[in-house]
Formats: sequence, C-alpha cells, structure tokens
Amino acid sequence: MILGRVCGSIVSTINHKFYDNKRLLLVDRLTIAGEPSGKYIIAIDSVGAGAGETVLIIDEGNSARQIVEDETAPLRSIIIGVVDQINPTT
Amino acid sequence: MILGRVCGSIVSTINHKFYDNKRLLLVDRLTIAGEPSGKYIIAIDSVGAGAGETVLIIDEGNSARQIVEDETAPLRSIIIGVVDQINPTT
Amino acid sequence: MILGRVCGSIVSTINHKFYDNKRLLLVDRLTIAGEPSGKYIIAIDSVGAGAGETVLIIDEGNSARQIVEDETAPLRSIIIGVVDQINPTT
Amino acid sequence: MILGRVCGSIVSTINHKFYDNKRLLLVDRLTIAGEPSGKYIIAIDSVGAGAGETVLIIDEGNSARQIVEDETAPLRSIIIGVVDQINPTT
Amino acid sequence: MILGRVCGSIVSTINHKFYDNKRLLLVDRLTIAGEPSGKYIIAIDSVGAGAGETVLIIDEGNSARQIVEDETAPLRSIIIGVVDQINPTT
Repeated sequence: MILGRVCGSIVSTINHKFYDNKRLLLVDRLTIAGEPSGKYIIAIDSVGAGAGETVLIIDEGNSARQIVEDETAPLRSIIIGVVDQINPTT
Repeated sequence: MILGRVCGSIVSTINHKFYDNKRLLLVDRLTIAGEPSGKYIIAIDSVGAGAGETVLIIDEGNSARQIVEDETAPLRSIIIGVVDQINPTT
Repeated sequence: MILGRVCGSIVSTINHKFYDNKRLLLVDRLTIAGEPSGKYIIAIDSVGAGAGETVLIIDEGNSARQIVEDETAPLRSIIIGVVDQINPTT
Repeated sequence: MILGRVCGSIVSTINHKFYDNKRLLLVDRLTIAGEPSGKYIIAIDSVGAGAGETVLIIDEGNSARQIVEDETAPLRSIIIGVVDQINPTT
Repeated sequence: MILGRVCGSIVSTINHKFYDNKRLLLVDRLTIAGEPSGKYIIAIDSVGAGAGETVLIIDEGNSARQIVEDETAPLRSIIIGVVDQINPTT
C-alpha cells in the first residue's frame, strides 16, 4: 500500500456501469517524509476522502474488488483509508 | 489508473484472434500537471479515443478483460474513458 | 520479495473489517547494501516486527492472502519474516 | 503492452517442461521515439520474431498463458506481434 | 523474466511452512550488457544456483506457484534457470 494526498479530481466519460456515480480522484503519492512527490495515481474513493487529505491507497485489482464487493469491477486502485497520523520511529 | 494522451497508433501483425480489428494506440503518460512525460503504454481502445485526446487507462489484466467482456483475452492495458477535465484542488 | 527496515507506523481509519486490529507499518526499502533507500511501502505485519528491524516483505496480493489465510483479504503487502543476517557472496 | 527490439537470445537450462524447445529472447525496450532504451525484458516468442525486429510484448502472466493456450505455464512475458509501423499523430 | 547474478543469501525467520528449508537468495539484477545493476530481488531457488552464477528469474506469483507445484505458496520470485550464455545480436 502507498500513501498519497488528494490533489484533484477527474471528470471522465466512462461507459462501464461500474463507474456510474463513482468519484475519480487524482492522488499525489507521498514520499517517506510525507511530502508530495509529483507522481500520482488515479483512484476511486471508498471512504469519503476530501481535498488535501492524506490517504492510504491499495493498488491491486483483487484487493480493490474486495473493497467494493464486486468481483467483476474493472478496478485496480482504491482509497481505503484516511490517514490520521504517520508515526516515525526514532 | 493513469492518465495519458493518444499520440499514435501501432500497426502490428498479431495472430491471436482477440486482436482482429482492434486498434492499438500509443499513449503518452501524463505528468500530474497534465503534460506528456515521454513514457508510454500501448493500449487498446474501448471508447473511440481520438488523436490528441486525454484518456484514462487501466493497466491490469483482469480489469481489462472485464471491460471487453472476454475472460480469455490476452490483454493488460485498455483505454476506458476520455477525460473531459482535470480539476486540481487548490 | 524485498528487504526493508521498519521505520514507523500509520494510524488510519479503514472501514473494511480485515483491517480491524491490524498494525500498518511504514517500511523503508533497503538497497542491495542493506541501507535505507527512502523508498517505502506500507505493509501489515505477520511476525511481530519491531521498530528498526530488517524485514522481508512480499508484495503480491495472492501471496499476502495465503499468509493471512483469508482469500478475501484486500491486501497486497505483508511482512513475512525478520531478517537475521544478509550474507554477501564474495 | 510495450514495444521492444529483439537484440539477443538467452541460453539457459530450465527444468520445467514448459520451456522445452522455447526460444528465450533478449528484448530492448523502446522509447516513445522508437529508440532502444537499454532497459530489457526476457520474453518467449510466439510469432517467429527475428533479430533486430520491432515487437509488441505483453507482460502479464494470465495474458501470456492465454497466448500459449496453457493455463499452467510459468510465464509472464511473451512477444505477441511484429510491429510493421508506428504512426505518430501529428 | 529478468536476468540476475546470485550475490548473497538471506537468513530470515519465516513462520509459513512453505519456507521451511527453502534457500532465499539475494540476486543482483543485470543490465542489458550483463553487468550487475545494484538493484536486487530476493528469490527462492529452484535449480541449485550457486554464488556468482547468472540466473533467470520469474517474478510473478502464479508462475512461481506453478514452478514449485504448490498453488497455495506465498511466493512471487523464483530462479528458474541458470544462464549458460547471453548471445547478443549484432
């Protein structure tokens, strides 16, 4: 899993019914220091993540399909959690 | 999922019947700022994407097979949407 | 599989029941020389790995699901071992 | 899928019967401009690709197994087409 | 598939029974010119590869599970061959 920050949304015409009424978010991947990297991923949201929030993303089709409870979903990347805190070990 | 811009097409002799009459597009991956990166992916098209259009690509075999509704398709990358707008959060 | 060093933990609100009471660790990937690379992965722990320990991570959904013995787990990355020694061949 | 150029072959002793009489090719991945990148992939050939030819490679296990029509094949990367032309959009 | 050179071994305590008596090798990925790259992978060995040998690695779970003939193995990376020769095309 990876950490990201929600930095935008995508408006796209997708014909597959799975994407009806799904929000597509633009997520900037975070570095280990918690800073935006400029590398991104487009993910759907399963937790109501808002702009600027730090999120946890899983990027694997079978996992994403389990989260949405739809084994036929054409889906790879999904936000599964809002990150409350990153605790470095020192 | 990733964002790309259609920048060409590939003419290739593929023997597998799945590829009969399929368009193979050369898609330049976009940066988070929406600019071409020079990194590319070859994808089939499921939405009638045209040259120069910004598209949404899913790069996972099982998802791609769901989109084409053929569980035996030898396929990993497919254009699933034309992007109308990228809305940055500011 | 890859080598990493546990360098933190993540506090996140995840709604899926699989993540109830699971520790999410921030793991710095190690270079071939055994040094932290600054590239990381978020993994769950299956071995009681502690802060600063060198660990072995498997980053594939089906493998991770075998380790937790739950074929429906939305999971890709898991710590499967604590590394006692890296023996270079010279 | 990705584009590559056949730049060599590998002689290897593999015990699994799937690899009996299979040619293992060294393929240089091409840049978006069609130039060799120095990054490579080892793939089996399904189309009789020759040295120096530009090829289309699919790098996903389930797709590769569909091409060889053997669902038990330990295989991830396979050449599925010879590229006749790359048409840039201008 | 990728080429690597065996450059070490890992001693790790893994609780899953699949890893009982399995050798975990540290393998330096080779460049297209056959030189070590400093990027590595941890793989199990299925061919008795020795230190310093050039090997062929497959890095996909389902393929690896076919090689070990255990569909429940939590495994992604496996050495499937010792490379006798790399023949560049000139």
